[in-house]
Amino acid sequence: MHSPISEEKVFKDPVHNYVHVQDDIIWRLINTPEFQRLRRVRQLGTSYLTFHGAEHSRFSHSLGVYEITRRIISQFERRGYSDWPAEERHVALCAALLHDLGHGPFSHSIEEAFNMNHEDWTCRILLGDTCVNKVLQELGADFPEKVASVINKTYDKPIVMNLVTSPLDADRMDYLLRDAYYTGVNYGTIDIDRILRMLRPFRDRVVVKESGMHAVEDYLMSRYQMYWQVYFHPVTRSSEIILRQIFRRAKELHDNGYAFRFMVEPLPALFEGNIGVNQYLRLDEALIQTAFLQWTEEEDKLLGELCGRFMHRKLYKYVEIDNIDLETIDGIRQAFRDAGLHPEYDLEIDFPTDLPYDKVHSDMPLNEKQILLLDRHDELREISEVSDIVRSISGIHKGRYHLYFPEEKVYPLLEQMPEKIGEIFKQQN
Amino acid sequence: MHSPISEEKVFKDPVHNYVHVQDDIIWRLINTPEFQRLRRVRQLGTSYLTFHGAEHSRFSHSLGVYEITRRIISQFERRGYSDWPAEERHVALCAALLHDLGHGPFSHSIEEAFNMNHEDWTCRILLGDTCVNKVLQELGADFPEKVASVINKTYDKPIVMNLVTSPLDADRMDYLLRDAYYTGVNYGTIDIDRILRMLRPFRDRVVVKESGMHAVEDYLMSRYQMYWQVYFHPVTRSSEIILRQIFRRAKELHDNGYAFRFMVEPLPALFEGNIGVNQYLRLDEALIQTAFLQWTEEEDKLLGELCGRFMHRKLYKYVEIDNIDLETIDGIRQAFRDAGLHPEYDLEIDFPTDLPYDKVHSDMPLNEKQILLLDRHDELREISEVSDIVRSISGIHKGRYHLYFPEEKVYPLLEQMPEKIGEIFKQQN
Amino acid sequence: MHSPISEEKVFKDPVHNYVHVQDDIIWRLINTPEFQRLRRVRQLGTSYLTFHGAEHSRFSHSLGVYEITRRIISQFERRGYSDWPAEERHVALCAALLHDLGHGPFSHSIEEAFNMNHEDWTCRILLGDTCVNKVLQELGADFPEKVASVINKTYDKPIVMNLVTSPLDADRMDYLLRDAYYTGVNYGTIDIDRILRMLRPFRDRVVVKESGMHAVEDYLMSRYQMYWQVYFHPVTRSSEIILRQIFRRAKELHDNGYAFRFMVEPLPALFEGNIGVNQYLRLDEALIQTAFLQWTEEEDKLLGELCGRFMHRKLYKYVEIDNIDLETIDGIRQAFRDAGLHPEYDLEIDFPTDLPYDKVHSDMPLNEKQILLLDRHDELREISEVSDIVRSISGIHKGRYHLYFPEEKVYPLLEQMPEKIGEIFKQQN
Amino acid sequence: MHSPISEEKVFKDPVHNYVHVQDDIIWRLINTPEFQRLRRVRQLGTSYLTFHGAEHSRFSHSLGVYEITRRIISQFERRGYSDWPAEERHVALCAALLHDLGHGPFSHSIEEAFNMNHEDWTCRILLGDTCVNKVLQELGADFPEKVASVINKTYDKPIVMNLVTSPLDADRMDYLLRDAYYTGVNYGTIDIDRILRMLRPFRDRVVVKESGMHAVEDYLMSRYQMYWQVYFHPVTRSSEIILRQIFRRAKELHDNGYAFRFMVEPLPALFEGNIGVNQYLRLDEALIQTAFLQWTEEEDKLLGELCGRFMHRKLYKYVEIDNIDLETIDGIRQAFRDAGLHPEYDLEIDFPTDLPYDKVHSDMPLNEKQILLLDRHDELREISEVSDIVRSISGIHKGRYHLYFPEEKVYPLLEQMPEKIGEIFKQQN
Repeated sequence: MHSPISEEKVFKDPVHNYVHVQDDIIWRLINTPEFQRLRRVRQLGTSYLTFHGAEHSRFSHSLGVYEITRRIISQFERRGYSDWPAEERHVALCAALLHDLGHGPFSHSIEEAFNMNHEDWTCRILLGDTCVNKVLQELGADFPEKVASVINKTYDKPIVMNLVTSPLDADRMDYLLRDAYYTGVNYGTIDIDRILRMLRPFRDRVVVKESGMHAVEDYLMSRYQMYWQVYFHPVTRSSEIILRQIFRRAKELHDNGYAFRFMVEPLPALFEGNIGVNQYLRLDEALIQTAFLQWTEEEDKLLGELCGRFMHRKLYKYVEIDNIDLETIDGIRQAFRDAGLHPEYDLEIDFPTDLPYDKVHSDMPLNEKQILLLDRHDELREISEVSDIVRSISGIHKGRYHLYFPEEKVYPLLEQMPEKIGEIFKQQN
Repeated sequence: MHSPISEEKVFKDPVHNYVHVQDDIIWRLINTPEFQRLRRVRQLGTSYLTFHGAEHSRFSHSLGVYEITRRIISQFERRGYSDWPAEERHVALCAALLHDLGHGPFSHSIEEAFNMNHEDWTCRILLGDTCVNKVLQELGADFPEKVASVINKTYDKPIVMNLVTSPLDADRMDYLLRDAYYTGVNYGTIDIDRILRMLRPFRDRVVVKESGMHAVEDYLMSRYQMYWQVYFHPVTRSSEIILRQIFRRAKELHDNGYAFRFMVEPLPALFEGNIGVNQYLRLDEALIQTAFLQWTEEEDKLLGELCGRFMHRKLYKYVEIDNIDLETIDGIRQAFRDAGLHPEYDLEIDFPTDLPYDKVHSDMPLNEKQILLLDRHDELREISEVSDIVRSISGIHKGRYHLYFPEEKVYPLLEQMPEKIGEIFKQQN
Repeated sequence: MHSPISEEKVFKDPVHNYVHVQDDIIWRLINTPEFQRLRRVRQLGTSYLTFHGAEHSRFSHSLGVYEITRRIISQFERRGYSDWPAEERHVALCAALLHDLGHGPFSHSIEEAFNMNHEDWTCRILLGDTCVNKVLQELGADFPEKVASVINKTYDKPIVMNLVTSPLDADRMDYLLRDAYYTGVNYGTIDIDRILRMLRPFRDRVVVKESGMHAVEDYLMSRYQMYWQVYFHPVTRSSEIILRQIFRRAKELHDNGYAFRFMVEPLPALFEGNIGVNQYLRLDEALIQTAFLQWTEEEDKLLGELCGRFMHRKLYKYVEIDNIDLETIDGIRQAFRDAGLHPEYDLEIDFPTDLPYDKVHSDMPLNEKQILLLDRHDELREISEVSDIVRSISGIHKGRYHLYFPEEKVYPLLEQMPEKIGEIFKQQN
Repeated sequence: MHSPISEEKVFKDPVHNYVHVQDDIIWRLINTPEFQRLRRVRQLGTSYLTFHGAEHSRFSHSLGVYEITRRIISQFERRGYSDWPAEERHVALCAALLHDLGHGPFSHSIEEAFNMNHEDWTCRILLGDTCVNKVLQELGADFPEKVASVINKTYDKPIVMNLVTSPLDADRMDYLLRDAYYTGVNYGTIDIDRILRMLRPFRDRVVVKESGMHAVEDYLMSRYQMYWQVYFHPVTRSSEIILRQIFRRAKELHDNGYAFRFMVEPLPALFEGNIGVNQYLRLDEALIQTAFLQWTEEEDKLLGELCGRFMHRKLYKYVEIDNIDLETIDGIRQAFRDAGLHPEYDLEIDFPTDLPYDKVHSDMPLNEKQILLLDRHDELREISEVSDIVRSISGIHKGRYHLYFPEEKVYPLLEQMPEKIGEIFKQQN
């Protein structure tokens, strides 16, 4: 069995005040190059272009998720709940700490552009020839596999997976608090101490004592507000669109044998779709930003212009519309083509949606997407059965269409497009 | 004269809640590539390796300095103080916003390594062929020069320079608050509203109403604590030392014609000391980090090792001693040489000092390094004459010697060094 | 016209940081005995028995409401909106400052017990022979009447009334923030700066710019949470019930000619329902608490016991039930009577309800209970038409029945009551 | 041995977020009438007349002191320090909770006026025929005496006394944080988590690990600022002076057989100096305020006027002077007498002093007024030996003379006083 470290170590953290490291294995994992790499991947991707304070890294967030998980488990241990399998402490803590290890730079955009998945990468790093793998092996040859199976949800202890991934898990709690703190918005101020105090291990699940219902309602509302105020902010979406266009264009050029003035490993492998674990670990946001800044001077005008837009924050303008039908979209694309615009690079249509909480109808069996309340008779109830507020908002997805486009190019050409299209693009917002 | 923008724009800021942009010139300056570049230069250099939250940029800080200056000027205008030259508003605001424009990546280390000065670079950017220069010229052909002269302290309106640079200026107030917020330490919580309310333009100076004395004392104490708790933190110093060693080694290699596996513009010009403005503007921390990560695989072992240390946070260990004499230092260096260690790369001696406040003796004339209190008889008094606390701490410089060294290399060789030296390096901390 | 004071005065306030007093009339109103009396009336009545931090006074809250109103008006003036009648500044500020002047000690309970109304009392104080009236008269003989007519909603400038009283007024904004601050709960953290920035005078109303919708949603959710977590907390309700029982019992005794060991002016007039303005102004919570503590030793056992319960916080226990019908209630009352219990003093049934927001159906005319959004085409829309969240929660009233009773008396007698009744009272919570 | 309670109870607290009650004895002590009485005694006496938010009670503070002590002890237990006597847990927690039990209303003023001492009263209540005594006896017949001996510093376990009373104890930490929170000033924001983490039981003392030195410096500076900004605020001192004058006058009248229109038990016993424990427990601020408000209409003009001043906040004006000699004071008193003013009631001279930290010279033995640092060699050093800052400020007492007087009475008579005296009173502040 692994021993605790001689003296607890702490990290000063603005969100949790201190992150406490009590196990040697955690300390050693934090000090691996793979985990240190997360310092160079922002937690919120391009959001810093909207909220300049949002420059915090996945490193910070990962420590936070670990810390919340540690507090939950400590509480379970202190209170001696019999439904919590005490021997799972290390698996749970390691999975919490490492769950985001596979995130690439500007993760959502790069995943979309190159059809990757960060959870797969997390598992590949855990199981590959890496320092993280070596440290994990100290707890047993099968320990890396255990941690990976929590991540990919095949572990045979459901309560561990439920602790690490659920609609009310340490991941979500940390990111709401942390993203609110760094952006400076007020919405994420959930009463985490109260929520944590209300959590109970119960059979295969981590559930919430009924008297914690209002704290959970507040958490779900915070989540809702953060989605619409921060995560789906149109300026952020605009920068993500440009980012994806850059990746798309660079890959096109690479596929066509274009000779880049500047190229750096492991971008070619990324474009070719055969990037290995150790190459992947060299991808970070410093590399992406360096490539983009160098590419502002590429011969290929489109790539240069897109990179200039991203690096100097000359983002696409957007208009917002309640609804749009396919025919109109086709019409716009055709008008763009007719005007000499690029129907894809010069126009992107975006429709963000989110469900504040995925209620599951009462006739469905309990599943891991539900938040369960434990009443005084030890009966479980899905929260939307009990909470008017949660029931009211469960069905809300919301969302309006946003059209993104390069203002300087499109505006002068609106004259020659059908009037109806001109009106759409000319509205004020 | 320049017109205000149609509708005030705001930036959400965690420290000041909102940064208000009311003048078109400010909005346009923020949107220049030169100003946007500050997003890629961290406010606190390598401090993020000690305080993981300290990932905020000079972009954020510059907005904050602008905002505080705007509030001071608005208050002067609202109260109609005759000693404030109202026509200087734009000069002061632009100087406040742009004062850090010349900072390079990991500024303090790179300045030391390459003997540069960020204020000079700020002026070169303001006066060079840049977008910032063009925007400033809209307010008059001599306007860029005016702003630059505030930065280099030759402007003919002393009160403007005193507003922008003094021991109690917007720069210092913002960085204390901001660095405290992002690191998460409690020390920087100065009562900025109260300090601002107490500021008065008085002849050539911005002075403090006497009843604001305690708020200023508190500010000076916060500054003191931030220096010793954050800015001079030995882990941060350790990473700065490695950074400088990397720059030094890379320049040595470049000077010797070493063929780097990875090299990117404008690093060669930086090494050669003939970097131009537009090259300089391409330097940012993304580029430095990218070069360092690539260099971990350079053939030159020393460079590779140093870069690995920096990127994967395998910093030098340190020991702290109250005092050390030159003879002992020489002895240590010789012992290192004898043991086959590099007497410079494998050992750095650091002695951080700071004065919480540079009191100036009462027999000296008033100068810009003093904080002046204005009493009810309109007499000025230097604060340390009035405040026991400030007088007490003015002379304190403090500081202990720190020896930094690569633990893994040095420890096995201590046996063969003189016992006295072994004791120095073996102490616990 | 009234002049501004020579130098702005400030009050240090934990919620708004500083409350700024810029008009002499405001300064003089604050210093009247009638306004100072509000220091001795708690903002949240008996809530301090649930949340020990909630000891803040109506004095604090009144300053806060004034400060928010001042900020709104300053913004309207600074931006020069033509729909805001600038000459109404003083009326609006005075009405904001003084709107709670008529609150008695433990206001809600005393109003219920003696059938009074604090708004009437506010007007009586404004118009009576009081210091406040004299100060107000300095702005014109009809000025007190103007201010009173804003309070009782008969003023002929609807926008002033809408500013002072609406579902999104300074009163509500201050109490959410302040009550959250002093209780220590997290729910009231609304982004007041953002809401204020989004307010617009528009015809007869103060409306919200459409882009402020999410901030208003967040405000309504905070309000919802504060109601259920704080204002309707069963422990608080329990203490209010005892308070009302004390008032009821004391009045019964007084009406029956009982000779109190301790009695103090103006309580007899209060019991007799003929209390005058100057007597009313001597009522405060110090007097009520003093009377109650003295009454713990009254000969009348019931009064003594109730006062002991209130002063020493031996509150009634409660059980919570989803629903209860009249028949059951009658059954309980009868069982209580049969067991020798008092069917009124020993049992109280409470059913708190609240609507987070009183939506008004789209076919109704605009009214002052609606929050209106102003879109970019200067069209007004009631917020629940636009916001999914607000629409979802508008209908929610919620609430469960709570039965309050003296545990020590009732429990031993449950045996002899019908089993069904015993079960109701024996449940755990 | 006493058992823990079935389920931990919590109090929501704005300063510590939650106060955790884990022992039945603590829960029962909190629910005694003697402890509940502390709700009616403000923590900061008359400070609410300066800082309107400072309406918090000694009840809140006592819970806070208990909570900090509980955290310290929990940490000692969790880490298994052998120098901490685990069996002292209950004594220490009870002493922490109850240490302020003997505070009377407006404690400092009433103690001064009637020559009482709250620590004596605490012990009398602990040992008298009270509910608190009965609850304490459940832990042993000698348990009340044990707790009392910690309060009066005669307990035979020095480390328990040092934990409960020292320059860095839970009492001081809680009041700095709490008073800062409720007044709204920024000065009290000490990093309590860090200080707590650095505490070590060491022989007979609770000492601070050397690396916590900066946190202690910050704590001492906060304490200094709170004293001068809050506790010694001249407006607060002015109201305390009036309070003492009221007590003095009322006692004079009582001694002279004056027939009060309003009198209430136990004030006569207080005046006569023979008040018993159960009478004392009926003293609270509600009673004092009620008496004062009633006394505003006493026949005795002076008493009526003083009570009106206190209740309606018509405080004495003050002037501040650097120094004053006895001769001048005599001159002023004579001039007051000559002008028909009362040389005592119409003039009070105040000289507040405080030492931020009572350093003890290095040649003195260690004592309980010192803060001790524990270095890595397990050597203790008094903090001012190590910290430049603490050494610098230890000698500072500061303080200026303040003259308080009724402006309306004194000003018209200044003309007829010697010019020098007129100048003193006429200065602006």
